[in-house]
Amino acid sequence: MSSGFQKCHTLMITGANRGLGLQMVKALVNSSHCPRKVIATTRDKSRAKVSGMVCSDNVVSIGYFRLAYAINQDSIEQASKEVESLLGDEGLNCLINNAGINISGTLETVEAEQMMKNYETNAVSPLMITKAFLPLLRKAAKQGTGMGIHRAAVVNVSSLLGSIELNWGPGAEFKTYPYRASKAALNMLTRCVAVDLTPEGILCMAVHPGWVQTDMGGPDALLSKEESINGVLSVIGSLSEKNNGGFLDYTGKTLPW
Amino acid sequence: MSSGFQKCHTLMITGANRGLGLQMVKALVNSSHCPRKVIATTRDKSRAKVSGMVCSDNVVSIGYFRLAYAINQDSIEQASKEVESLLGDEGLNCLINNAGINISGTLETVEAEQMMKNYETNAVSPLMITKAFLPLLRKAAKQGTGMGIHRAAVVNVSSLLGSIELNWGPGAEFKTYPYRASKAALNMLTRCVAVDLTPEGILCMAVHPGWVQTDMGGPDALLSKEESINGVLSVIGSLSEKNNGGFLDYTGKTLPW
Ligand SMILES: NC(=O)c1ccc[n+]([C@@H]2O[C@H](COP(=O)([O-])OP(=O)(O)OC[C@H]3O[C@@H](n4cnc5c(N)ncnc54)[C@H](OP(=O)(O)O)[C@@H]3O)[C@@H](O)[C@H]2O)c1
Ligand SMILES: NC(=O)c1ccc[n+]([C@@H]2O[C@H](COP(=O)([O-])OP(=O)(O)OC[C@H]3O[C@@H](n4cnc5c(N)ncnc54)[C@H](OP(=O)(O)O)[C@@H]3O)[C@@H](O)[C@H]2O)c1
Repeated sequence: MSSGFQKCHTLMITGANRGLGLQMVKALVNSSHCPRKVIATTRDKSRAKVSGMVCSDNVVSIGYFRLAYAINQDSIEQASKEVESLLGDEGLNCLINNAGINISGTLETVEAEQMMKNYETNAVSPLMITKAFLPLLRKAAKQGTGMGIHRAAVVNVSSLLGSIELNWGPGAEFKTYPYRASKAALNMLTRCVAVDLTPEGILCMAVHPGWVQTDMGGPDALLSKEESINGVLSVIGSLSEKNNGGFLDYTGKTLPW
Repeated sequence: MSSGFQKCHTLMITGANRGLGLQMVKALVNSSHCPRKVIATTRDKSRAKVSGMVCSDNVVSIGYFRLAYAINQDSIEQASKEVESLLGDEGLNCLINNAGINISGTLETVEAEQMMKNYETNAVSPLMITKAFLPLLRKAAKQGTGMGIHRAAVVNVSSLLGSIELNWGPGAEFKTYPYRASKAALNMLTRCVAVDLTPEGILCMAVHPGWVQTDMGGPDALLSKEESINGVLSVIGSLSEKNNGGFLDYTGKTLPW
């Protein structure tokens, strides 16, 4: 994990009860540079698996907030209020939009409803969450200079499958219309947000975690959760101006849109 | 208009009652290479403005079919049945997914509902229409060789604003989250469909018509409908293998994703 984490005091990650989100929380609380406050959200508190976890000394609290997903705007706003009361004047240094689903659908099988559902969860919800947490990100941004998680950053967990350019030849083998379209849209939204928040010093970028052994990635995936998240956290920790509006994989390599 | 139109016997275009769709129908029926059958769809027959148009001799029929948009899958399937009865064994050489909306929304104002609605109309519906008309496109593809509108092609009317790469610096001035995300997703779907239909000889590509004086483009736009559509038709007429899965503007220039 890189230097940015030394000055990242508050961090929030969605979809933290299993898969990559849970691994990220585990890796953070076990590291020597763990943010003082890690907010790990799950849509169902009973699924919050980190609660019994042994935390390193500098972890003040790991809060679980019910963060049900858009269109339920109410629950997002409720979560942002709860998080605000926890973070107060510190604001939020890093928001990681990790929660996501992969609804499979080929040209022959895909239906409109699947397209809409995957878009709602993977593209619209991260945008609505970013909006709801903007006041907290702005608070943090006002207290720093430069760009990165030491100040304020939004990290959208995207996918290689969201790269339009790479969806060709061997890169096109994995067919999933609802998921691919949702992640391409998320990439566009990442860039929209990056453009709009640059003047306030808030960074926004998209990261591809690799193909990972989780419920989503399946057992044949190339990477363990540990390998993926070590890479992702190192990328996140090193973010600076030059990555604003960018699309990187877990090794730090730039991916084409 | 280029050579491809000489062998393009059947063509369908959505959203043909005004704007670019209407201009395309006008330009086609007034050209010497007009397809024998042009199907111009509108969601409301009373808005079908071309009905009184003087057609050149080789235009057998211009049919208007009510083609309401997804999620109403029924109306798309109904339209495809009606079109099938009109085209029969000829099949469909060219499907132009032109209908679209631009719901404006900035970071501050955008709401989930706007995101969903714009996605449904601009990304999901073209996909569902393409699926519904696949049997007709396949019929046409079986009768030709090579790739282009002389055989079978799907043209998705996209936008420069759907380019993630160009959404930066001066290219990012026009802020419209719902529209940009929907067109980026349409670009991804264009490429998904291109990959999947290549083995059957059906081409799929995305075209940017330029910034045009229509209800959507507004009066300050740089191009007249005539200028834009002359360019677009020339691009469509010249399509070949090398444009499969591509993104071109109305001058034939390749745009980055
Ligand atoms: N695994 C891979 O190979 C891979 C590759 C590229 C990108 N990614 C991306 O990485 C991120 C994490 O994936 P993962 O592999 O960890 O997937 P996962 O094991 O399936 O976990 C998904 C997480 O997202 C949460 N979630 C899903 N839908 C939600 C909703 N509507 N509201 C709230 N939470 C929701 C889940 O919560 P519940 O437990 O409540 O369902 C869970 O915590 C995703 O964005 C995914 O697209 C993964
Ligand atoms: N004008 C530009 O500068 C520009 C630039 C880049 C890309 N484009 C794209 O070019 C295409 C045509 O745009 P335009 O400028 O001609 O727009 P326009 O003048 O607003 O016309 C839009 C057309 O789409 C139809 N439509 C919209 N929503 C529909 C729905 N839900 N179901 C069925 N039909 C629907 C409209 O039918 P109704 O009359 O029934 O509403 C109308 O025929 C769009 O895809 C647009 O995104 C335009």
